[in-house]
Amino acid sequence: MDFGYDDRTEQLRAQLTEFMDEHVHPAEPVLHEQLAAADSRWTHAPIIDELKAKARERGLWNLFLPGADGAGLTNLQYAPLAEIMGRSPTLAPEVFNCSAPDTGNMEVLAEFGTPQQRERWLKPLLDGEIRSAFCMTEPEVASSDATNIGTRIERDGDSYVINGRKWWSSGAMSPRCKVLIVMGKSDPEAERHRQQSQILVPVDTPGVRIERGMHVFGYDDGDHGGHAEIVFDDVRVPAENIISGEGEGFAIAQARLGPGRIHHCMRAIGMAERALELMCRRVTSRRAFGGPIADQGVVQQWIADARINIETNRLLTLKTAWLMDTVGNKGAHTEIQAIKVAVPQMVTTIVDRAIQAHGAAGVSQDTPLASLYAHARTLHIVDGPDEVHRRSMARRELKKYR
Amino acid sequence: MDFGYDDRTEQLRAQLTEFMDEHVHPAEPVLHEQLAAADSRWTHAPIIDELKAKARERGLWNLFLPGADGAGLTNLQYAPLAEIMGRSPTLAPEVFNCSAPDTGNMEVLAEFGTPQQRERWLKPLLDGEIRSAFCMTEPEVASSDATNIGTRIERDGDSYVINGRKWWSSGAMSPRCKVLIVMGKSDPEAERHRQQSQILVPVDTPGVRIERGMHVFGYDDGDHGGHAEIVFDDVRVPAENIISGEGEGFAIAQARLGPGRIHHCMRAIGMAERALELMCRRVTSRRAFGGPIADQGVVQQWIADARINIETNRLLTLKTAWLMDTVGNKGAHTEIQAIKVAVPQMVTTIVDRAIQAHGAAGVSQDTPLASLYAHARTLHIVDGPDEVHRRSMARRELKKYR
Amino acid sequence: MDFGYDDRTEQLRAQLTEFMDEHVHPAEPVLHEQLAAADSRWTHAPIIDELKAKARERGLWNLFLPGADGAGLTNLQYAPLAEIMGRSPTLAPEVFNCSAPDTGNMEVLAEFGTPQQRERWLKPLLDGEIRSAFCMTEPEVASSDATNIGTRIERDGDSYVINGRKWWSSGAMSPRCKVLIVMGKSDPEAERHRQQSQILVPVDTPGVRIERGMHVFGYDDGDHGGHAEIVFDDVRVPAENIISGEGEGFAIAQARLGPGRIHHCMRAIGMAERALELMCRRVTSRRAFGGPIADQGVVQQWIADARINIETNRLLTLKTAWLMDTVGNKGAHTEIQAIKVAVPQMVTTIVDRAIQAHGAAGVSQDTPLASLYAHARTLHIVDGPDEVHRRSMARRELKKYR
Amino acid sequence: MDFGYDDRTEQLRAQLTEFMDEHVHPAEPVLHEQLAAADSRWTHAPIIDELKAKARERGLWNLFLPGADGAGLTNLQYAPLAEIMGRSPTLAPEVFNCSAPDTGNMEVLAEFGTPQQRERWLKPLLDGEIRSAFCMTEPEVASSDATNIGTRIERDGDSYVINGRKWWSSGAMSPRCKVLIVMGKSDPEAERHRQQSQILVPVDTPGVRIERGMHVFGYDDGDHGGHAEIVFDDVRVPAENIISGEGEGFAIAQARLGPGRIHHCMRAIGMAERALELMCRRVTSRRAFGGPIADQGVVQQWIADARINIETNRLLTLKTAWLMDTVGNKGAHTEIQAIKVAVPQMVTTIVDRAIQAHGAAGVSQDTPLASLYAHARTLHIVDGPDEVHRRSMARRELKKYR
Repeated sequence: MDFGYDDRTEQLRAQLTEFMDEHVHPAEPVLHEQLAAADSRWTHAPIIDELKAKARERGLWNLFLPGADGAGLTNLQYAPLAEIMGRSPTLAPEVFNCSAPDTGNMEVLAEFGTPQQRERWLKPLLDGEIRSAFCMTEPEVASSDATNIGTRIERDGDSYVINGRKWWSSGAMSPRCKVLIVMGKSDPEAERHRQQSQILVPVDTPGVRIERGMHVFGYDDGDHGGHAEIVFDDVRVPAENIISGEGEGFAIAQARLGPGRIHHCMRAIGMAERALELMCRRVTSRRAFGGPIADQGVVQQWIADARINIETNRLLTLKTAWLMDTVGNKGAHTEIQAIKVAVPQMVTTIVDRAIQAHGAAGVSQDTPLASLYAHARTLHIVDGPDEVHRRSMARRELKKYR
Repeated sequence: MDFGYDDRTEQLRAQLTEFMDEHVHPAEPVLHEQLAAADSRWTHAPIIDELKAKARERGLWNLFLPGADGAGLTNLQYAPLAEIMGRSPTLAPEVFNCSAPDTGNMEVLAEFGTPQQRERWLKPLLDGEIRSAFCMTEPEVASSDATNIGTRIERDGDSYVINGRKWWSSGAMSPRCKVLIVMGKSDPEAERHRQQSQILVPVDTPGVRIERGMHVFGYDDGDHGGHAEIVFDDVRVPAENIISGEGEGFAIAQARLGPGRIHHCMRAIGMAERALELMCRRVTSRRAFGGPIADQGVVQQWIADARINIETNRLLTLKTAWLMDTVGNKGAHTEIQAIKVAVPQMVTTIVDRAIQAHGAAGVSQDTPLASLYAHARTLHIVDGPDEVHRRSMARRELKKYR
Repeated sequence: MDFGYDDRTEQLRAQLTEFMDEHVHPAEPVLHEQLAAADSRWTHAPIIDELKAKARERGLWNLFLPGADGAGLTNLQYAPLAEIMGRSPTLAPEVFNCSAPDTGNMEVLAEFGTPQQRERWLKPLLDGEIRSAFCMTEPEVASSDATNIGTRIERDGDSYVINGRKWWSSGAMSPRCKVLIVMGKSDPEAERHRQQSQILVPVDTPGVRIERGMHVFGYDDGDHGGHAEIVFDDVRVPAENIISGEGEGFAIAQARLGPGRIHHCMRAIGMAERALELMCRRVTSRRAFGGPIADQGVVQQWIADARINIETNRLLTLKTAWLMDTVGNKGAHTEIQAIKVAVPQMVTTIVDRAIQAHGAAGVSQDTPLASLYAHARTLHIVDGPDEVHRRSMARRELKKYR
Repeated sequence: MDFGYDDRTEQLRAQLTEFMDEHVHPAEPVLHEQLAAADSRWTHAPIIDELKAKARERGLWNLFLPGADGAGLTNLQYAPLAEIMGRSPTLAPEVFNCSAPDTGNMEVLAEFGTPQQRERWLKPLLDGEIRSAFCMTEPEVASSDATNIGTRIERDGDSYVINGRKWWSSGAMSPRCKVLIVMGKSDPEAERHRQQSQILVPVDTPGVRIERGMHVFGYDDGDHGGHAEIVFDDVRVPAENIISGEGEGFAIAQARLGPGRIHHCMRAIGMAERALELMCRRVTSRRAFGGPIADQGVVQQWIADARINIETNRLLTLKTAWLMDTVGNKGAHTEIQAIKVAVPQMVTTIVDRAIQAHGAAGVSQDTPLASLYAHARTLHIVDGPDEVHRRSMARRELKKYR
């Protein structure tokens, strides 16, 4: 048992932290100004491209991707880097070409894509030239159960024809978004986990109608591409756009799930660290009732509990990454669900207290806290609500006794 | 001891509920459409005026105001009506001319205003023709302590000259807002609670600069007038604009506090009832894992706890209203603080769970829940953070033992 | 709506409080000394009889019992008196002849007893000469569902014969306990709520075997009669011992439930007030880190929250009593369940924090806190666990929407 | 980074688990029977000696002690073994000669003892022939601050004379307890952390008066030696009984603190695992409302949260052990405090829910749960209350920003 990061990780953490301090954090207000000055909510801000170029130059690029296509890190090595990016969740992941859902989409293409698919879509994604979206969730059904999916992917000659309605397709409002990976049912009569397929759909295919951007609390998340509601109306794509093969949709979804959870959770831990830092700065600099707010016992309790909960959740997330690296997704099933439940709870609580410590500024546009909260709050819901995961964990625990 | 509402209250509750069901709730989407279609975020939507006319016609008008100027209800009689309005917090209070901060401003003018002040400002406010704002909170200081105020109100001949910076002046972004009540220091050398004055400032007075609207979790609250940051730069108003007299500012602020808390808390209870209703409707109409979500034990626990906490908090708020009516604000001090702490806790928890029960729809623009949450969350902060009130309550409790 | 106690209540509260201060609280250590010095854990301590005589003399006697047999108070009038007794839950209720389960048993005999039953058992109970137990809960089944009961009550000629095993029969270890009211099944084939009967069993009837006293945490509760596990082995009693008639057992149980809940909850509120008082005394008298513990923010938060939660829970309990008085048990169903869930939560939290404020003394025999905690903890379980009541409440709430 | 136990640890875990299953768990009821049948609460039950002999035979002995005197394990290697023992906290630690406070006392003697002290006291302790107590806490002062200590240790010729009052001296009620390590002030004028000394006092020294055993929630903990209140009245011991030297008391106390925390926390995690197992067994074997209790959503939530919190807390405790092994107590300061706060919170919550899942049986003597709860509850208090550690953690966190 060894709780120290390895040398490669330590070196990358140092480089990344330096880059964040020098380039990313100072660029946060610039991003907001550029977006405010733009004609459209869905503009791609120039500052992002400047930073991407710098990051790539330094080799801080595609760190999430194992194998030769990417930086070749293990989950355990990448996790602490995702945490650092999470300190600036709107800006940093894209700067290092590590932002969801592109990361998951690239993983899928790297693992399951044909040479043509890789050439056409993976290459520009790896180069950070285009963005992509993943169309899974549907408004009409409980999306935590993949068998509920209503969207159809039907073979018709050399094509597949797609019909359905998706929402919360992250990133699809961005003008850079060029391709959608769509999950749908190709064979509703097949065995439960063989009914689904995933298929590549260029965003400009006739019949693809992006209807609106979803709001999260009052935010439209234009800064990282929004979340679209998209109608697929007799959308026809070549049969070769299918990924891995008909009926492989569920297996592909499972494959992306594990690393996705690690990334989400580690970024969330970075968000919690950021909120804790902001809270500490605020309470040491503000006074009330004759002393710094930092001297108040209740605030100290918040800070201690934040430190404790960050540490425990980070360790469990790292252990999960280690399990995935050593025994695979299946062997890490319980832990993957555990962090899916535990980390959002931790981060929403810490951000909420940081808000409280800031008073009215905390809920306003003058700190990133309200926006962090909105983002953290969604983690209790995306990829299945907490309750579904707790239920599943409990069943696995109880199996030992039945 | 008697826990039943009196006849007048029951009658008004019935009328108000009927009006809400017939006119207000159906108008909620209309309001959002009108605002979305308007050129500016700060438009006054026509639907509001239509509803105001209807409400006034039925005598559902100025219900908050005791005495001959208003409906003449006690706090205990008005409280359950405020709850009903709180079910649609964006729209209903203004429809019945019972929306903050106009209510507090009208109370102040009714109690402390000169005949001229009443004629010029109270009358059009009572008629719902103009709106007003209350400028108290400042960005640079902990506003929970009135002695911290930095804004100056200085006598200069027949005028007062005002200098300072305020923020979170609710309603001041509205084009209908015509007058500001400004709290400032007229004599920093006076005894602690005689340093402040309140003064009427027409919003178009030279030197009044509305700088920006504050956001709350991404919302700008344009639908009810926003929250402005305002600079007062050598703003000169006639000396007769002072309210009640120099040094009376703190006493006036105290006078408005009690009823304001009751109103806030009862509206918040209405918000909680609305959220609980939405949650119940959702879980009875959605299915997951082979049955309605309503059959899940965790959801049932949320619902039972919501019912319990609404009941207990409503009773304490009503008792507080009764105490204010029978023994005055001072005698109700502990209870006023208790509801200030307890009710926000109750309502944020219930709204948060209603969000969770809705999944992704809960955080989106498709339900009022995320917006209710943002509003509820601010109640932990406005008029002093929870922690300040708990501390003060504890000191009063401990006094018995020292 | 009126939140003031009536005159009779205020007068009795004053008398009772005076008696508690003068006689009951000073007797607490005496009781423990007498018990420690006794040969058996199940001794009846002489101090109790002294206090009972004094209380009866002053008319502070059988206050719980409505009608001519008792003090004739309503539930709403008795509730605040039960709260005062709850401040010393081990001693006070018995001193005023208001201790469970005698109270419920007396109510049952007063309402359903034959003249002979009343003469033989009710009279000495009203006089405080004997004690009684109620045998309902069974070790083998989930007792929250009365239809689960396994004990049999079978007619055999002029007798009934009882067979079964009961536990947690409160008070049955006391040497003064002379009679048991036993709930059992007389007709397992009857309609669900007509299967049960209740019957009077003198404790010395052959076949009644008191096997052991149950512990609650490490306490055997010898000071108020313990909780027995009792075997009924062919226990034969005259047919006239049946209460109200065969098949009436469930109805009788329901009748005692409402007032029982009010009593339990109000005593629990008294326990919370006692714990809060002890906490305040402790933190004002102890110093740490250069000041009284009372100055620590976390402790102040505990105290404020305790005050808030006591107030809200008391109001809901009083409203429940009022509803029972005005619309009956049925009309108060939701509220009776609400206080069953809410009050134990409140009191365990407050007592737990009072313990924490006392450090090691808090868990020891040197304060009543650990014993209060053990008692409060059982309230989450007796008469059905919290979860069952929440579930039932939720179902009633959801009915409006199905 | 590596989250797997090393080979030696895995082997010992297997051996220990086997011994627990074969010998310790079956002996739990035997212990209670032997104690119940004994004349005195403070008897040493014969079953313990039988098991000790068996354990020693298998080399499962003094596992806690690093170096040649003991099993020579690191903190990281011993921690998972302490967890296994914690599953039966009353019995197992003593069986393996790993029970507090003997462990700490042996560590102190091994590290600081003179050859004579080691021969006279360490040897029989290592052999499990005698027991010992540690007398630190005092009734009159907040013991979380070592500078508060009132007991005096004064040099008089060739002797030291000890005067003072201690309580919660664990194990001192046992007839096997032969020696006390007493912490007291030898020089109140010295520098803050040089005022204290520790000294060995044979329990039969004249002037040592064991006054009473302290209760914990009604338990006297006779099964593992109780917690004594002891008066030292002119107790005279030879000067050579001082440990390490005058003024070394604080340093010695610090040295024992780190390992002690790890042991306490890992045992507590074992308690939590035991409670979770009991909960799972109960809910899979009991039915209510037409199905096993295990199918209820609320219970599933408890189980999932229990699993999550056990995992996160275990990882943090193991990391703390690793830090102590690699960078020493000082470098692990934050983590030592973090587990001191986090682990008790986790274990009390899990045990409390396990109690609730058992209904009335949960609070009774029929399961170990109520006793586990009482033990777990004290962990929030011993070695300084949670609040003191949170405050200290917060100050360290805030230092970075001042």
